[in-house]
Amino acid sequence: MMEKDFWITDQPIEINDVVEKVVRPEAGAINTFIGTVREFTKGKRTLYLEYQAYAAMAEKKLEEIGQEISEKWGDAKTAIAHRTGRLDISDIAVVIAVSTPHRKDSFEASRYAIERIKEIVPIWKKEHWEDGTLWIGDQKETKSYEENRPAKEEIIND
Amino acid sequence: MMEKDFWITDQPIEINDVVEKVVRPEAGAINTFIGTVREFTKGKRTLYLEYQAYAAMAEKKLEEIGQEISEKWGDAKTAIAHRTGRLDISDIAVVIAVSTPHRKDSFEASRYAIERIKEIVPIWKKEHWEDGTLWIGDQKETKSYEENRPAKEEIIND
Repeated sequence: MMEKDFWITDQPIEINDVVEKVVRPEAGAINTFIGTVREFTKGKRTLYLEYQAYAAMAEKKLEEIGQEISEKWGDAKTAIAHRTGRLDISDIAVVIAVSTPHRKDSFEASRYAIERIKEIVPIWKKEHWEDGTLWIGDQKETKSYEENRPAKEEIIND
Repeated sequence: MMEKDFWITDQPIEINDVVEKVVRPEAGAINTFIGTVREFTKGKRTLYLEYQAYAAMAEKKLEEIGQEISEKWGDAKTAIAHRTGRLDISDIAVVIAVSTPHRKDSFEASRYAIERIKEIVPIWKKEHWEDGTLWIGDQKETKSYEENRPAKEEIIND
């Protein structure tokens, strides 16, 4: 049993470990979003991915997202795990679980969580394609770095 | 490993059994909806629920929902399991998993699936409250039956 509700790990994520964090008698609905490594992106074949994170900072940001959800949806409980390291095709990169009394809220809050992860959590991925590699600097994929992820200082002062 | 992608079972549902049906290299997103037994509904305390289904017909209807999703969202794969029998508080009644290349579709299709289940799948639940019981005749909860679920013929001819 994981101690935290929001965590970064270099081990495979068990979906149940995340879901069991949010099961409770008040909830009738649990929405889970699972991000997996897709083989083709715009016709380009991915061989594998590499994720790196500033773990302590990333966990803090995940927790912040959980708090935002509680403020926005009232009676919601959130848990999120994100993996780092090398991930092969179909491996799980992220699992989000949100429980709420009624289903509509669980869908909305879970969707919100994945969008926010991509906006504010310091995790970078390196794409290993058939014909090269590229660090994706932010998860919205608007910045990229040929050589490496951005320096820690760059992020902190962002 | 379950043989079907759409099934009714009187055993506890393992979330992973449903999710593993839709994992594939084309998918970058899996949305999972899990319906659990909630303790309180409008201040009324539920002790436990009982679900009954015409299993063969229900599985056919679940499959139909999967086909509707494939038609509406293109590259989507769906799996659904629904439990019957006695369920205690927080037990899982239904698990839906939908995988798509991109996340937006997975959320929309999963939401569609749970709404359609409540519209067209012949499953009834009997609420056991502290102060009595009631059969809920349809999952949209617009009909109820004091004594029992509707006769099979009533449903078939509906």
